[in-house]
Amino acid sequence: MEKQPTLSRALKSVNPFRVMTVMQRAKELASAGRDVIHMEVGEPDFTSAEPIIKAAKLALDEGRTQYTEAPGIQPLRAYIADMYASRYGVKIAPERVLITPGASAGLTLLAHLLVNSGDGILLSDPAYPCVRNFINLMSAHPQLVPVGPQDNFQPGVDKLEACRTENTTGVWLASPSNPTGTILTRSELHTICQWAREREMHVLVDEIYHGLHYVDDLPSALEIDNECFVVNSFSKYYGMTGWRLGWIVVPESNIESANILAQNLYISAPSIAQYAALAAFTPAAQEIFEERREAFRQRRDFLSQALSEIGFLLPDTIQGAFYIYADISKFSTDSEDFCRNMLEQHGIAITPGTDFGDYDASKFVRFAFTTSMENLVKAAERLSQALG
Amino acid sequence: MEKQPTLSRALKSVNPFRVMTVMQRAKELASAGRDVIHMEVGEPDFTSAEPIIKAAKLALDEGRTQYTEAPGIQPLRAYIADMYASRYGVKIAPERVLITPGASAGLTLLAHLLVNSGDGILLSDPAYPCVRNFINLMSAHPQLVPVGPQDNFQPGVDKLEACRTENTTGVWLASPSNPTGTILTRSELHTICQWAREREMHVLVDEIYHGLHYVDDLPSALEIDNECFVVNSFSKYYGMTGWRLGWIVVPESNIESANILAQNLYISAPSIAQYAALAAFTPAAQEIFEERREAFRQRRDFLSQALSEIGFLLPDTIQGAFYIYADISKFSTDSEDFCRNMLEQHGIAITPGTDFGDYDASKFVRFAFTTSMENLVKAAERLSQALG
Repeated sequence: MEKQPTLSRALKSVNPFRVMTVMQRAKELASAGRDVIHMEVGEPDFTSAEPIIKAAKLALDEGRTQYTEAPGIQPLRAYIADMYASRYGVKIAPERVLITPGASAGLTLLAHLLVNSGDGILLSDPAYPCVRNFINLMSAHPQLVPVGPQDNFQPGVDKLEACRTENTTGVWLASPSNPTGTILTRSELHTICQWAREREMHVLVDEIYHGLHYVDDLPSALEIDNECFVVNSFSKYYGMTGWRLGWIVVPESNIESANILAQNLYISAPSIAQYAALAAFTPAAQEIFEERREAFRQRRDFLSQALSEIGFLLPDTIQGAFYIYADISKFSTDSEDFCRNMLEQHGIAITPGTDFGDYDASKFVRFAFTTSMENLVKAAERLSQALG
Repeated sequence: MEKQPTLSRALKSVNPFRVMTVMQRAKELASAGRDVIHMEVGEPDFTSAEPIIKAAKLALDEGRTQYTEAPGIQPLRAYIADMYASRYGVKIAPERVLITPGASAGLTLLAHLLVNSGDGILLSDPAYPCVRNFINLMSAHPQLVPVGPQDNFQPGVDKLEACRTENTTGVWLASPSNPTGTILTRSELHTICQWAREREMHVLVDEIYHGLHYVDDLPSALEIDNECFVVNSFSKYYGMTGWRLGWIVVPESNIESANILAQNLYISAPSIAQYAALAAFTPAAQEIFEERREAFRQRRDFLSQALSEIGFLLPDTIQGAFYIYADISKFSTDSEDFCRNMLEQHGIAITPGTDFGDYDASKFVRFAFTTSMENLVKAAERLSQALG
């Protein structure tokens, strides 16, 4: 037999998401007639808002089916720039905003813009698993900063400094964070940005869950540091996951390089999605988004209290996103086994902490409150019976 | 002032597309009231076919706005597998087909799957510029194989062998080719695949312009070698550029790794586009595609003859795609200067050969017949006056 040609070595360090195995098995059980409550899924359970659907149909009627400019259609970039002015009080030139085919493509673009093989990039453990994998794919090193409940699951400069090495060139932050739902305060962000600047490091900030926050003050990193790279998305607050639409904001000096990468990496973001997203900035759509945010807040309130009463340990406040990262020490020392058991025995699909990092990962599971209040009530009853 | 953090070194070897500068300048001239004929654009001038638009609206009404499975919706993968059976007589398991957000994402995925830093990948010069850039972004080496009219602009094993080095791990082919519109015959493909297998190299084949061909026999590489990696797209023949939808076919043994990369790199292709693309396989849509192919064939016939008569040197037959790669030696020794002059003085937008490689690039320009017959007639008159 012929010998196989070689594959990428970086692949070995890229993990599949365990949540996919959970989803797959949950589907199988459901097909076999079992009633499964889905709390593993990282996307809103609402379909896209009606004004967005209507705008998409209009774009179809107008034949907007061709490539757009690589960094996105001008009016959408302008709306996003306006949003930074009105929501955050920060002036961003629309040219600094690049529309991307999902935040995933924004992440890819920034990796190719900023990361060299051998670089070290600091990021919290736990964190969204793709980030670690992207860094690995660039043959760079994810430098995991272990954070726990005592840190509100966010890295401070002491820990960052302790994990920094000679080859560290950037720090990746997420506020609100997936899987923990915690945020970086204004002063925390300020301290980290200043620390990073003094060390000539890039600051990259995942603000994908902005809008879905339940605290009064959620600053964008752009308010604090004009040289930050920010990744955002129409998926979560705007409820447009399947459309694959996100954006990045880059510093003035990187606009040209980012445009060249956009041309090469994806030509343009989906055109219909871009025209549809224009409607996301109408009062009618904003009203729907705020109603949904309120629904998430109620679910959060209910689920936090229910989980606490059953004996899970949670952060003091779930400040944003739609996740609760719960400590299961009272019930198990093996989060994968715990999740398997919850699914097989009790019809509750949740994600083990091992999807999000190494640090204490077998002590934690992630609950997503991306299902109806009715389902959450049912889930709480089942958990209570199983563990109470 | 603070020192700037470093950027990716690979960026330096990534070029912007000169076609973008042409497009930008053409737009400016048009805004200033000039009549510009667009022959620089690499996308069909037709909007997407009505059955596709209708299917998209249905998907919107049905609320198909969430992520799909990472490798794409099952029925679409099955239709594509069926198409390989009916059009090429080759049996492909649907699991080997992964739906990607545009062929660009397919290219990214394969690069991350197969390429290590320092690898050499053989590809023809001229070729689609993104491929070279992708290889550079992986810190690998594009190994350019100079091809000219005497080769029908396609590499043979003699030239490939001459350019191969110790570190060569793959060969990238394109049939039909952008920018030259030439194809690899069945026997040429066979010879190259065999040669590559004997040397344990990957064979990657761009079949994006399949369907838009004007010869009787256009084989897919999958008919010849089951271990090939094929990239295809709904953009060209199916007329769905702005939707960002393509696919790859991978060997059985790479399905799992490809799926993991899909999850990490893009989560899923756009959902509405996937449901819309189901309609591309209906007889009504196929009829429209064949009408459009016929329109492209007529344009090709007209433009080839007109350019030859004016004094451009062309390949014997434009066998596929919608490009003519024409030798301008009779008029100029500087294709960039020639293109600038054609645009500024004569209102004809075309792309210099320097976008596609180094070899004899200043001797060639690319005409895209992605504009109406009426415009092509006008362009021929202008060229005739300018150069005749």
